[in-house]
Amino acid sequence: MKKIALVMGSESDLPVMNKAAEVLKDLSLPYEAHVFSAHRTPREAAEFFASAKEEGFGVIICAAGMAAHLAGAAAAQTSLPVIGIPCRGGALDGLDALLATVQMPSGVPVATVALGGGANAALLAAQILAIGDEKLYEALEKRKEAAKNKVLASDGAIASKLP
Amino acid sequence: MKKIALVMGSESDLPVMNKAAEVLKDLSLPYEAHVFSAHRTPREAAEFFASAKEEGFGVIICAAGMAAHLAGAAAAQTSLPVIGIPCRGGALDGLDALLATVQMPSGVPVATVALGGGANAALLAAQILAIGDEKLYEALEKRKEAAKNKVLASDGAIASKLP
Amino acid sequence: MKKIALVMGSESDLPVMNKAAEVLKDLSLPYEAHVFSAHRTPREAAEFFASAKEEGFGVIICAAGMAAHLAGAAAAQTSLPVIGIPCRGGALDGLDALLATVQMPSGVPVATVALGGGANAALLAAQILAIGDEKLYEALEKRKEAAKNKVLASDGAIASKLP
Amino acid sequence: MKKIALVMGSESDLPVMNKAAEVLKDLSLPYEAHVFSAHRTPREAAEFFASAKEEGFGVIICAAGMAAHLAGAAAAQTSLPVIGIPCRGGALDGLDALLATVQMPSGVPVATVALGGGANAALLAAQILAIGDEKLYEALEKRKEAAKNKVLASDGAIASKLP
Amino acid sequence: MKKIALVMGSESDLPVMNKAAEVLKDLSLPYEAHVFSAHRTPREAAEFFASAKEEGFGVIICAAGMAAHLAGAAAAQTSLPVIGIPCRGGALDGLDALLATVQMPSGVPVATVALGGGANAALLAAQILAIGDEKLYEALEKRKEAAKNKVLASDGAIASKLP
Amino acid sequence: MKKIALVMGSESDLPVMNKAAEVLKDLSLPYEAHVFSAHRTPREAAEFFASAKEEGFGVIICAAGMAAHLAGAAAAQTSLPVIGIPCRGGALDGLDALLATVQMPSGVPVATVALGGGANAALLAAQILAIGDEKLYEALEKRKEAAKNKVLASDGAIASKLP
Amino acid sequence: MKKIALVMGSESDLPVMNKAAEVLKDLSLPYEAHVFSAHRTPREAAEFFASAKEEGFGVIICAAGMAAHLAGAAAAQTSLPVIGIPCRGGALDGLDALLATVQMPSGVPVATVALGGGANAALLAAQILAIGDEKLYEALEKRKEAAKNKVLASDGAIASKLP
Amino acid sequence: MKKIALVMGSESDLPVMNKAAEVLKDLSLPYEAHVFSAHRTPREAAEFFASAKEEGFGVIICAAGMAAHLAGAAAAQTSLPVIGIPCRGGALDGLDALLATVQMPSGVPVATVALGGGANAALLAAQILAIGDEKLYEALEKRKEAAKNKVLASDGAIASKLP
Repeated sequence: MKKIALVMGSESDLPVMNKAAEVLKDLSLPYEAHVFSAHRTPREAAEFFASAKEEGFGVIICAAGMAAHLAGAAAAQTSLPVIGIPCRGGALDGLDALLATVQMPSGVPVATVALGGGANAALLAAQILAIGDEKLYEALEKRKEAAKNKVLASDGAIASKLP
Repeated sequence: MKKIALVMGSESDLPVMNKAAEVLKDLSLPYEAHVFSAHRTPREAAEFFASAKEEGFGVIICAAGMAAHLAGAAAAQTSLPVIGIPCRGGALDGLDALLATVQMPSGVPVATVALGGGANAALLAAQILAIGDEKLYEALEKRKEAAKNKVLASDGAIASKLP
Repeated sequence: MKKIALVMGSESDLPVMNKAAEVLKDLSLPYEAHVFSAHRTPREAAEFFASAKEEGFGVIICAAGMAAHLAGAAAAQTSLPVIGIPCRGGALDGLDALLATVQMPSGVPVATVALGGGANAALLAAQILAIGDEKLYEALEKRKEAAKNKVLASDGAIASKLP
Repeated sequence: MKKIALVMGSESDLPVMNKAAEVLKDLSLPYEAHVFSAHRTPREAAEFFASAKEEGFGVIICAAGMAAHLAGAAAAQTSLPVIGIPCRGGALDGLDALLATVQMPSGVPVATVALGGGANAALLAAQILAIGDEKLYEALEKRKEAAKNKVLASDGAIASKLP
Repeated sequence: MKKIALVMGSESDLPVMNKAAEVLKDLSLPYEAHVFSAHRTPREAAEFFASAKEEGFGVIICAAGMAAHLAGAAAAQTSLPVIGIPCRGGALDGLDALLATVQMPSGVPVATVALGGGANAALLAAQILAIGDEKLYEALEKRKEAAKNKVLASDGAIASKLP
Repeated sequence: MKKIALVMGSESDLPVMNKAAEVLKDLSLPYEAHVFSAHRTPREAAEFFASAKEEGFGVIICAAGMAAHLAGAAAAQTSLPVIGIPCRGGALDGLDALLATVQMPSGVPVATVALGGGANAALLAAQILAIGDEKLYEALEKRKEAAKNKVLASDGAIASKLP
Repeated sequence: MKKIALVMGSESDLPVMNKAAEVLKDLSLPYEAHVFSAHRTPREAAEFFASAKEEGFGVIICAAGMAAHLAGAAAAQTSLPVIGIPCRGGALDGLDALLATVQMPSGVPVATVALGGGANAALLAAQILAIGDEKLYEALEKRKEAAKNKVLASDGAIASKLP
Repeated sequence: MKKIALVMGSESDLPVMNKAAEVLKDLSLPYEAHVFSAHRTPREAAEFFASAKEEGFGVIICAAGMAAHLAGAAAAQTSLPVIGIPCRGGALDGLDALLATVQMPSGVPVATVALGGGANAALLAAQILAIGDEKLYEALEKRKEAAKNKVLASDGAIASKLP
């Protein structure tokens, strides 16, 4: 089974990445977490991304805020699918990170999820790996079923919470 | 080889989707194009997305503008990876389509690419399928190499274009 | 009397929908509350919206945040009037929900109210039902009168609250 | 049958309102068009809106751009449902008109449709009037069916338009 | 001496208007405070604005939030100068109120100040009245001088507050 | 009669300022046009603004784009009322100029009008000067009446322009 | 060694400027702090900036919020490099200050750093002075190395902080 | 004399960079133009930036659009001052490029100029090099003087261009 790389730009992105790790653990998918900065450790980041495939990674998830270049730096070095999680910082409500992550030039895609969308990044990685893995696909369908049932339970109980 | 679904919300999204089709054709990847609207053909869209896996699709690419719900409607029906291309419409410079595509709730990811990013959507689909296909991975690396060489050629010629 | 459907995308939208329910209760209008998600229970949501008319509903109110597709999913399934309440989430100050709710394509309108505008959604539903119900219209005019009088009372008292 | 008022802030909004009139004509719904400005003819506008109900109107549609106050001025004077169409002007891509129309205070709702959404405003008005008119409801369902069939025809023809 | 009208859309705008009142009191300028809503008391507001000149007012200051129509409603009824203060509400950081106040159509100006700019609205009113009142002009120049001296005092003390 | 200063940041703002000049000429108000840049001629601009009052000016109108500091630079030098017209430039649709003009700090107000609002700036200046000039006030009321009649004429003719 | 001027628009910008001062002190670079307002002390600010070069300054750093004109006012008076730090205020999340600082007209550049970016402004000033000072350049490279090592230490420790 | 590097992300940025080159040529400053992409030639770009100092460069100017990472990639590799020019692309009016360039994390500054601000980037580079070069400083002051005189000439001629 290919590993999933969880790379964050700084430890302040840990709460977001934690949501990804929990999903992956729950799905028994192997992952490896790293802190690399596109701006403070450009060489180490580039080397990690460039050798990710031969190190056994199948998907790379990057989380960063502000001028969020980390996912783009990954996509520049590998043809593995790269998932970008824009993180909210102190200003501009995260619009800066969202645009810096998603508006990639032609030839170098980053699969961008919602602001702070750690869980969705992990699920997307799992969906990608599930293309060749029926069991994983079924596990994802079960999660979908569970999410559905949780909503339906809410639906059953909501009447009592309104006047 | 799994097929790639190219689904657009209306024929006005054809120029964007055409860029995706050209990349896929160039990579000899099988695709099937459709026009389904999350709002005008909700049932047909839902059925198509729900049965996409058993119809042999591996990845779904959706292009839509304004309150762009198509990719989200796909992600709601399947655990296949869904790639969303927000399209610019007449107003708000496409910000509406971008936010409606990327800001998905937890549990239902959409891999969002840049506004009008048809080529990148196709490349991302190819990267996803390349996880289990070394030849395809190499073809993608060759494209990367070609893109690099094109930039380097530009670099060699730029001096003559400035005063 | 036709019922009003109050549908929220998740229980986190309850505070907003509660404001709607209070207005409807105050006007003695029958309503039925539900939790359905366009993304987690697409089938159940579609079925509910598609059969809403024959189940005796006259107006549908949907509240959702982020890439708020719920009202659009309702409008896709019925020709009943659909009112959308965009809800603020953690990021982008609700601009995402507003644009995803209001920027609907031609043919599928959603009557959008202000961010978090639960009370206004209920009043709009009442105004719609009041077209064929003079008593209800008068009740609405009385509320308008009461709101006016509250402002006029404020006006009478304001001088004492300034230097 | 109640009439629909089509009120625009200036003749420059005619192209948007024309789309509304075409839909209403197509549905054989009676409408009456006016030009009133919340700022240039406040008295005439107020009088028109205040007496709209007794003049036989059932729904009011207002189109305006920039600091688009017209729909709000209507909603201030009547308990009839008021539909607001924000129009794009020269600057800010219409964001000004959208926010000025939709962000109404509690107690005074405006049913806002998309920027330039003339057709949707008319359809929403028709949906509102159809609550007490089964034939009109069926006509709307037929339009929905026709829109669906147009998309399905597009779907059938799209393959030939891609490489 | 002409009076200054301080009109707020609701009591929630009191903190902003209080800053205006303090400046006016400090300058010994006569003012009269009111609460009128463009949407909840349109008639009373219109009457107040239409008769403001003959009631002895020289300048009108309006404070409102969200789809802030109050200043525009004033400007529609009088040729007195109208100053608009956009107020921050819960969502969109006040951008809605700013655009709804400033983007007025040709022929109906509103002199817009910064978000929450109560003090500046009062100073602007004073500057307007000072055109025909040398003493007031001098009082304003003195305030400018005092503000300058406060900054210069800050400048003298800042070195000790840094490492 | 006090003069009105029309100051633009560069000749590219001439079309906007021309609309102001036309209104002033129509009202027979004396004005004097200048080109001063807050950034390219800071000293000359400062001197002009600082001596404006003793040179016989009553109101200053400034038009500038991008980081539009001109009106603020005027307000810093005089206690005359300063009206700012933000102008659209090539990028960001004029949002930069609007915010740079309106978001002035406490103590230094700029009366901001709509993007490109040359005519409104002139009318606001006239309203300000009309406080002490009944004839001018009446001329403004006549313009208001004319604008009203133009809308009413539009209203009378609109029915024939729709289907 | 040339001095660095740290100029803030008001004492409320002290926390941001403090981050700059700490970096400069750490690098043993001489600086001098001032409070000057482009709007409250325009003359003093202009004089300071105009004579900065002969007073021995090499770089000017300005911090201001809202319609942040301070850096532009500096750049208007000197050909020394001017660095602008936009500061977040209460509204609009600092977008106003960012645009007012960065969107300078041709001929008068301001080197703009991130919202609240005090440390980066100081580092940029140091980089500028390091062009002619090898020791300073080496000190900056050491900081870069230290920042890198801090990230690598984070990287080594991150695995233990995830599930 | 240190050289100035002009690096653009693709040839489509040539018109913007041309404005920089013209200014540098006019000032007789040596420059060298390159096309490197942070995403298509990450290694070549990194190597160029890392060795820029020993290759004799004093300042680096980068121009890029969309998720504009080029300037950040430069700043990550060198302690030379890096100037970033955000370029407008097809969507979002360049807001994406502006935020991706300016919102750099602490420790890695990019001196950002206005959207498309090629001339200002060159002038800023010249200002930086002029710290140790009196003649260059004087040349810059002369340009400032010329710009001033051009405005003053405009000022002299403007009266004839208005009614």
